[in-house]
Amino acid sequence: MSTPSRNAISPTRHDDFPEWYQQVVRAAEMAENSEVRGCMVIKPWGYALWERMQSILDGMFKATGHRNAYFPLFIPLSHLQKEAEHVEGFAKECAVVTHHRLEMKEGKLVPAGELTEPLIVRPTSETIIGSTYAKWVKSYRDLPILLNQWANVVRWEMRPRLFLRTAEFLWQEGHTAHETEQEAIAETEKMLGIYETFTREYLALPVICGEKTASERFPGAVRTYCIEAMVQDCKAIQAGTSHFLGQNFAKASDIKFQSRLGTLEHAWTTSWGVSTRLIGTLLMAHGDDDGAILPPRIAASQVVIIPFIPKEEQRTAILEKAEAIALLLRTTQYAGEAVRIEIDSRDINGSTKNWDWIKRGAPLRLEIGPRDLESGTVALARRDRAPKEKESISIEALSERIPEILAEIQHSLWERALIFRTTHTREIDTKEEFYEFFTPKNKTQPEIHGGFALTHWNGSAEAEAKLKEDLKVTIRCIPLEEAPKAGTCPFTGEPSRQRVVFGKSY
Amino acid sequence: MSTPSRNAISPTRHDDFPEWYQQVVRAAEMAENSEVRGCMVIKPWGYALWERMQSILDGMFKATGHRNAYFPLFIPLSHLQKEAEHVEGFAKECAVVTHHRLEMKEGKLVPAGELTEPLIVRPTSETIIGSTYAKWVKSYRDLPILLNQWANVVRWEMRPRLFLRTAEFLWQEGHTAHETEQEAIAETEKMLGIYETFTREYLALPVICGEKTASERFPGAVRTYCIEAMVQDCKAIQAGTSHFLGQNFAKASDIKFQSRLGTLEHAWTTSWGVSTRLIGTLLMAHGDDDGAILPPRIAASQVVIIPFIPKEEQRTAILEKAEAIALLLRTTQYAGEAVRIEIDSRDINGSTKNWDWIKRGAPLRLEIGPRDLESGTVALARRDRAPKEKESISIEALSERIPEILAEIQHSLWERALIFRTTHTREIDTKEEFYEFFTPKNKTQPEIHGGFALTHWNGSAEAEAKLKEDLKVTIRCIPLEEAPKAGTCPFTGEPSRQRVVFGKSY
Repeated sequence: MSTPSRNAISPTRHDDFPEWYQQVVRAAEMAENSEVRGCMVIKPWGYALWERMQSILDGMFKATGHRNAYFPLFIPLSHLQKEAEHVEGFAKECAVVTHHRLEMKEGKLVPAGELTEPLIVRPTSETIIGSTYAKWVKSYRDLPILLNQWANVVRWEMRPRLFLRTAEFLWQEGHTAHETEQEAIAETEKMLGIYETFTREYLALPVICGEKTASERFPGAVRTYCIEAMVQDCKAIQAGTSHFLGQNFAKASDIKFQSRLGTLEHAWTTSWGVSTRLIGTLLMAHGDDDGAILPPRIAASQVVIIPFIPKEEQRTAILEKAEAIALLLRTTQYAGEAVRIEIDSRDINGSTKNWDWIKRGAPLRLEIGPRDLESGTVALARRDRAPKEKESISIEALSERIPEILAEIQHSLWERALIFRTTHTREIDTKEEFYEFFTPKNKTQPEIHGGFALTHWNGSAEAEAKLKEDLKVTIRCIPLEEAPKAGTCPFTGEPSRQRVVFGKSY
Repeated sequence: MSTPSRNAISPTRHDDFPEWYQQVVRAAEMAENSEVRGCMVIKPWGYALWERMQSILDGMFKATGHRNAYFPLFIPLSHLQKEAEHVEGFAKECAVVTHHRLEMKEGKLVPAGELTEPLIVRPTSETIIGSTYAKWVKSYRDLPILLNQWANVVRWEMRPRLFLRTAEFLWQEGHTAHETEQEAIAETEKMLGIYETFTREYLALPVICGEKTASERFPGAVRTYCIEAMVQDCKAIQAGTSHFLGQNFAKASDIKFQSRLGTLEHAWTTSWGVSTRLIGTLLMAHGDDDGAILPPRIAASQVVIIPFIPKEEQRTAILEKAEAIALLLRTTQYAGEAVRIEIDSRDINGSTKNWDWIKRGAPLRLEIGPRDLESGTVALARRDRAPKEKESISIEALSERIPEILAEIQHSLWERALIFRTTHTREIDTKEEFYEFFTPKNKTQPEIHGGFALTHWNGSAEAEAKLKEDLKVTIRCIPLEEAPKAGTCPFTGEPSRQRVVFGKSY
């Protein structure tokens, strides 16, 4: 989309997508690796994006009757052991606290004060929250419990990647307990719907809502629903999950209640979450060879005013004009909120500032220089267009034009992502075409290939496992469809209820 | 203040203040102990209070040029060791991660995958943030760095107490780096000022701003400023701190920059924080023998509408009226914000609901029953008055009266706390009176005694240590005063620059 320039990201998306991504995260000042293996430092511009996500999602959770609470960071080892499948899935790679003190020995600090029972830094909180709910719930009158927490979690990752897969990450985890199975299923579906709405309306990301197969299910869940996004190397990213846990965790944690009939029943529980992974997804979905591109509705700053000050004596006048423009736009609204404006008043040259904001992905830039002072105009540049494509616009017209242009950008990013996904989604009915679709043409440097294959599948776990082994392709989800059409599974020749979504994934 | 009743907190504040506090935290549904030693579960009503605190403080931080970021939960052991004094202060009791995996051995999960270097769960983040700043800072142009993070921290506590002293707690920690000493000192003082403004305006808590003595200083700091509150057992609570770290941490972490003169200099850094401890302080300062009392400006719900439904057939009409009142008050403002209203529509009797909200400390209750439907009134009850003291008020008058009454409550809590502190603060000039002031009269069950003693002190660390040993009394702070008056230290007979604040503390 953008004209390549000396400031562009190197390599390009096409040349080396994973490396392009690392460079965009760096150039956009979103995050960096820390000295602690697998843990990242989320930088202010990246964290501001997370704060926007938090604020919007939090509002959606509260509007649907949820409240926030906070549960301990540590889980006693014995808790984790209660739900057998959960153990299998989560006990593998996690941070284990074994000591509660350090002592100086021969000039070196060493762990001391060994714990009787080791503590696990939460990889997710079903077990610790479950044991709390067990204390809170006595009667059906205590249900539902609809809580969420914003927290950090830790899963020891062998191959960390900023935002997408880090040892520590930030997320929200909703945990609810219900009187009936239907209510719990309805909750699971409702929260999936909220995630879909959020990614569509704010992140301009089309996602497929579906259910995971048994092999990809959350350990201990009865059903795992997910939203699956496609990014620009045609891979899938699981951007959010919502789990119907049945009575599994309620039984493990002993969440029992007296029913309306006077019987003692186990509660039905759910859990659902999205994480800082959404930031990585966003960057991979919308970024270009110049850097990040943030959809206006999620960008922390939507409009950045960039003063160009060629001569020192013009500084005051230009900065004052920038302030005046920001003031003028104070009451301007876009999508029901005040337009978020920032002035980059750093004492560096205008072109460098301009490129910084291109890389950071600010939706709109307003460049103002000495000539604009005379003409009463600014140069307006959209991040979804080439960097040099600028429109001179009168300052009076800004308050009307800015909301229109922000809406256009939001829409154009959505359209672009949707077209990309459509272009790389294919209904495939034969095994040969399937293998061909997912096989890179160039073996030394695998180019971008594949996408979503909509293919029939008869439910065979063996077929699923073989595709994973042969092609690293998994079933991303069984899409939730109104009227699924039956067909034949090309891998087994057996009848299939519906097409499922296959893809390679992060 | 309130009439004792069968629903009151037992014991009373006077009979057993620490136990009263535990019971208030429980009855107000603020938090509870978890199964993980020293870690608490913050319940929705307690967490909503924290969310209010976060939102207000975050706004104040951003208005003064700070931005949020996020740094790793874990600190490599070697980092902690860099600043010698810091090690002394913080390496003692902390959670140590030594393994990154669990393995099933003979049916039991055991730690596996020992780390080459143990990781410490952050007790505070100076060291890990310092090592990051060292990478970011090259020139004076990169300064100041003004960042804050909202995070959880862990300090292994031997005697945990909900909110006041827990192994894990939530806080914000600001970390800034500056070009000059003066700038860093100004930042330290500015943030202390923000904490004082916040506690005064929102928490209705008078605090003393001052500097800690060397023995109470943050490990590694050059100066530690604090705000000290007095709670109802006359003890002090350190409610917030702001540290001028000089170049100590910059030297330990190697934060160096090229100065305007071209020389290589170490940065000057600060750190400052408040935590969930503020919730405990608030409860201890304002609560009464009926439960919590929340100042309106901080309460998550300021007005709770409590439907009294004696007969089932009246339910719809009464609930509809409650909704209508909430709607009527939608545009009502208090202190620049929409009044926060909640309807308690739980299907339990009105009196129980009423007592729940008394215990939770909601500033205003509006009871509505069948008789009110006819008369167009509600019964208004203020949490700063006795539970049975109610005012019948016409629904039309509510939108005018509610903001007035909320302002009155906010003011009355402030006045009450200020009078309490004044009553229990004494200028003491002799050793005898000092010892008498801080010695309980009744040895078997120590009653509430003491308070703040404003006494001269010549700076002697020995005198300070002796008072701590004899009376468990410490110097809470050396107050920041415009024109301190000199005098004589009663413990050493030496000249003293000013009176300092002595007290027992949590």
